[in-house]
Amino acid sequence: MSIYLHDIPLAEAQARLKNALQSAGIWGMLGIETISLDENALGRVMAETIWAKISSPHYHASAMDGFAVRAEDTNGAQPTSPINILLDDGTQDRRTGLVNRGRYVDTGDPMPDWANAVIPIENVESLYGKGDISHDVRNPASIRIRASVAPWNYVRPLGEDIIATQLVLPAGTILRPVDLGAIAAAGHDQIKVARRPRVAILPTGTELVPIGSKLAAGDILEYNSLVIAAQIKTMGGDPTRFPIIRDDFDLICERVQEVAGKHDLILLNAGSSAGRDDYTSKVIEKLGTLLVHGVAVRPGHPVILGLVDRDKFHIKGISSNPGSLPLSSVTPIIGVPGYPVSAALTIEIFAEPILARWLGRRVANLQTQAAQITRKITSPPGDEDYIRVVIGKVGDKMLAAPLPRGAGIITSLAQADGLIVLPPGVQGIEAGESVTVKLYRDKADLERTIFCIGSHDLLLDILAEFLSKYDRRFISANVGSQGGLMALRRGEAHLAGSHLFDPQTGEYNVSSIRQYMPEIPVKLIALSNREQGLIVRHGNPKQVKTLQDLCRPDVHFINRQHGAGTRVLLDYHLKLSSISPGTIQGYNQEEYTHLGVAAAISSGRVDCGLGIAAAAQALDLDFIPLFQERYDLVIPKEFSEGELLAPLYNILNDSDFRGVVAKLKGYDASISGSVILEDK
Amino acid sequence: MSIYLHDIPLAEAQARLKNALQSAGIWGMLGIETISLDENALGRVMAETIWAKISSPHYHASAMDGFAVRAEDTNGAQPTSPINILLDDGTQDRRTGLVNRGRYVDTGDPMPDWANAVIPIENVESLYGKGDISHDVRNPASIRIRASVAPWNYVRPLGEDIIATQLVLPAGTILRPVDLGAIAAAGHDQIKVARRPRVAILPTGTELVPIGSKLAAGDILEYNSLVIAAQIKTMGGDPTRFPIIRDDFDLICERVQEVAGKHDLILLNAGSSAGRDDYTSKVIEKLGTLLVHGVAVRPGHPVILGLVDRDKFHIKGISSNPGSLPLSSVTPIIGVPGYPVSAALTIEIFAEPILARWLGRRVANLQTQAAQITRKITSPPGDEDYIRVVIGKVGDKMLAAPLPRGAGIITSLAQADGLIVLPPGVQGIEAGESVTVKLYRDKADLERTIFCIGSHDLLLDILAEFLSKYDRRFISANVGSQGGLMALRRGEAHLAGSHLFDPQTGEYNVSSIRQYMPEIPVKLIALSNREQGLIVRHGNPKQVKTLQDLCRPDVHFINRQHGAGTRVLLDYHLKLSSISPGTIQGYNQEEYTHLGVAAAISSGRVDCGLGIAAAAQALDLDFIPLFQERYDLVIPKEFSEGELLAPLYNILNDSDFRGVVAKLKGYDASISGSVILEDK
Repeated sequence: MSIYLHDIPLAEAQARLKNALQSAGIWGMLGIETISLDENALGRVMAETIWAKISSPHYHASAMDGFAVRAEDTNGAQPTSPINILLDDGTQDRRTGLVNRGRYVDTGDPMPDWANAVIPIENVESLYGKGDISHDVRNPASIRIRASVAPWNYVRPLGEDIIATQLVLPAGTILRPVDLGAIAAAGHDQIKVARRPRVAILPTGTELVPIGSKLAAGDILEYNSLVIAAQIKTMGGDPTRFPIIRDDFDLICERVQEVAGKHDLILLNAGSSAGRDDYTSKVIEKLGTLLVHGVAVRPGHPVILGLVDRDKFHIKGISSNPGSLPLSSVTPIIGVPGYPVSAALTIEIFAEPILARWLGRRVANLQTQAAQITRKITSPPGDEDYIRVVIGKVGDKMLAAPLPRGAGIITSLAQADGLIVLPPGVQGIEAGESVTVKLYRDKADLERTIFCIGSHDLLLDILAEFLSKYDRRFISANVGSQGGLMALRRGEAHLAGSHLFDPQTGEYNVSSIRQYMPEIPVKLIALSNREQGLIVRHGNPKQVKTLQDLCRPDVHFINRQHGAGTRVLLDYHLKLSSISPGTIQGYNQEEYTHLGVAAAISSGRVDCGLGIAAAAQALDLDFIPLFQERYDLVIPKEFSEGELLAPLYNILNDSDFRGVVAKLKGYDASISGSVILEDK
Repeated sequence: MSIYLHDIPLAEAQARLKNALQSAGIWGMLGIETISLDENALGRVMAETIWAKISSPHYHASAMDGFAVRAEDTNGAQPTSPINILLDDGTQDRRTGLVNRGRYVDTGDPMPDWANAVIPIENVESLYGKGDISHDVRNPASIRIRASVAPWNYVRPLGEDIIATQLVLPAGTILRPVDLGAIAAAGHDQIKVARRPRVAILPTGTELVPIGSKLAAGDILEYNSLVIAAQIKTMGGDPTRFPIIRDDFDLICERVQEVAGKHDLILLNAGSSAGRDDYTSKVIEKLGTLLVHGVAVRPGHPVILGLVDRDKFHIKGISSNPGSLPLSSVTPIIGVPGYPVSAALTIEIFAEPILARWLGRRVANLQTQAAQITRKITSPPGDEDYIRVVIGKVGDKMLAAPLPRGAGIITSLAQADGLIVLPPGVQGIEAGESVTVKLYRDKADLERTIFCIGSHDLLLDILAEFLSKYDRRFISANVGSQGGLMALRRGEAHLAGSHLFDPQTGEYNVSSIRQYMPEIPVKLIALSNREQGLIVRHGNPKQVKTLQDLCRPDVHFINRQHGAGTRVLLDYHLKLSSISPGTIQGYNQEEYTHLGVAAAISSGRVDCGLGIAAAAQALDLDFIPLFQERYDLVIPKEFSEGELLAPLYNILNDSDFRGVVAKLKGYDASISGSVILEDK
């Protein structure tokens, strides 16, 4: 039994898969189906080139409401010497000697065969016969014109839009609304499209439970199949999600055999690593051929690629359609890693090219955007490294801020604006270096992104929600109050959240702003007053009530990181109370957010920490208020007047926002929006 | 009865509509529905902000397969002085005096409550008890380690991904695959989304016939409803297409009343102008309020905006859902112009903002691309002018080539890479000016576009089809052989199609290349030999057989434009035969393509023209061969070696391509790909 995966380079893994599918005769369009040309054809991939069956228009058509005439009958007409044209009687004109004729036509009407031009109705004077009392402008006895017209004036000639036999759209086109119109105009009412590849998604794992389940420790919500099914659908495939299979080798083999005859591709998730219950590689070895176990990509390296041999197990199914590839006896199977980020990337990297090939379309190409990375990134040598980033424009710099890199962090994918791909040779990039980001969002989205950095507060999430109504994306990164001010100095964010108490002056933030970003003029606005206090487990089992209690040997504390306003406040009050930090167990253990502190207490890892009431309330913990403090937003003048941040001031002064804040325990929003300081 | 529309500025029209919907209380989300969180939620718009119900992970979890330990038990372990950790027995270590403990954990397993770090299985040596013959690496008696680990090494702490109560995604998010995962991970299995606006599409027009119908003169294929339904679907609405209604005022009123109670928006197409059978404005005046008739946009100005008053006509229906707007008694209606380009643009301009508002999402924003326009454009003063363009990169210039501007030309929308919008004040732009293009395609698509300019040949369409298999878009513009060479000189295309015969040398193209683009080194490649001859109606009713016959008084000829190779050839042979062009009726009438000539003959407009056999065959006309000529591709050296054009040479030398060409009458592909001339 092999415990260690053997990671091979990505290009080699992709080549092995391609070669195997090519040998099996399934590296091309899987099949063709004829469908009606209706709105359900949207997004389907054309399996054949469309040539025009008819011309459009298929006759010479009037392009205006007006009178069809012969252009030569209008020669010589002038403002001062008009020409009268009799309607439809064929009388000879005295001056020209020609028989003149005219007839009213609506837009789109066929031209009379003797006519070659149209005069719009608003450009003629209608002359009525003596007995005509209706004076229908469309049926006068004659019309008077004061300008000549050229042949083909306001006529849409046959074939103006489409000429029979011309190319309309090539095979491989992904159908958009206007494409459907062009195909219809060319005389088609059906269209041949690539059959959608049928993809079976089999979640495996005894620890998995369906989404929405009540959770016990060790239970893992199975949502990978949901993300994968949605990805496959987006790629043009036809996904089917199957129920969770427990970790049982025989059971997994049985299920794979069941689906192999009815699907073009099997995605087995997870069990692709080499742990105790990782059966995927053994299942594939039993049912067919294992091509690859382990790819040097990060995250996502325990990927498995293989083939199920249907003949060997007498699995019937998967018929070929007219125009499709010859019947193959193998069904490709991908062992998809279990971590959600790894799973989603594996589908992008390995399933997308197969589906593109099977559908006869191009591989989806993400747009790219140049940006500067905000912090140093290290990358293991030899791996192709995928780094999720958020992007925002701060001043005239386009910045890419790396998101948490853990493969388990699905929110990093949902938040990501794009990916930086570091090739195997590159071991890292320095802060400030220029990078190319493959975008998950439209570029227009990047211009409406607000970068907030600094201390964490729950109100920032509330602010994000309110700002989204003003078409702003509010991205907040937690680096502590000091870290925020230093980031502003480096020009890496539009604003910072800060609650830095100055023990000398008794004031918040002002002296720190002058210390950490002395040369930058700012606007300082209050977000809220809030209570800081001790967060303890429900019922306060250790009866921690004062700072003195933190020194008790049975009490385990957890601290905030250096530079955090909460830590500054703690140190100030410890000093006031003459308590030495060394006497507090856990003083050197750090968390980066209030909720991180609350989570450490909620899980039983520690007994207490200093934080805000809202964090305690969120995780159903108790809160012992100790001090009140002010939490401000620091905004460099460069950004404080701009359109991007304009909605912020509306929100802070809005009763809706204050109402939501008032419901959170420990907040006082009466000062929200007050300007504390405004540099010139 | 008002014949003349009164065009008002676009902004005013949009404001009137918005104000009317606001007054009616339907300028916000129409309703909310709760749906299961599955792949069908893709693309729906979130009606509420999602906050995390649970943390993820909801317990401290092992991030690796390995051994859970207490980090402090590993202090001091070195390569040369390992530490042994006994599994799960609580024995005191002799050296450290601590009770050491370890337990095997799989990735994702909850950490034992006494452990705070994981050592990956590949980093330990397993020591087995004397009686243990299984030697299970996951169940040894003890493990030996040679390096210490830090607390939280390979542990995913509770809340690493999501902490309960945090913001997951704001309302208004259009759901993507990874968003579904993030929402599921946050403990949700249902989601509230905006109800899809129900949109009724009513095609009107006695001249309309369903797509796929056999056509008589005056019949118009009704495909606007198809394009509009697909647009509405793409925008997130729920479209319903109704059958064609003939031009009958009472009937249209009746149908509008029928759908008004079951739909949120009515799109009546066409009848929005002021022609004889244009009833839309009168229908709306009868059933409610006419807000706007005529907007200064081009194409598309005869737009009608209005409201149907359901109360007045006792129309029941359209209930509001929880969270939706108060029940309104009006249903907005848009009179959509009949020309397909106008119709599609009207939906983009007027329906998209309404649907965005009703769905609570942002208005779709097209990306933009800077480009140089290839030719002068004039625009009527006062109109907002929408110009469709194709874009390609030629050398280092991004070029935008305007497409035919007729509102009836649906293919111009299908081919368009984007739109240039000229605001009302601008009366035109000069060739070479810089413009901003709103893109219909991904930017990546622009890099694979080949611009071909010059003489038209049917083989260019065949070439386009073959090139699309190599991931190239081949756009050909027809300006005649000479025009093509001059465009190459100006750097406006990658290659030109040319068949310029030199009467002096008897050679094709070479002398013209030296004359029109003397300073540019080129590669000249043969595309094909082809026959030129007289195209005549089926059965050749006028018995035209020689150039001499063109001088007969009963024969009407149509010519190609100045500079076209066919015209050069004609003039050469007229001279040889001593025929004066003045004796040919229609010598001065010009068409720009072979198919244009064929269409003029097919429609009966003229009797004959000089052209290629393929054009005659395409429109079922007869062909009298007169001369053979060579048609070449002229490629500046700058592009002839590049990757973009590389597939061209493969195709020209490919038997598949030659096979397709061989089936076309009058072509000889044996010389395809031969290099005629190659400059250094």
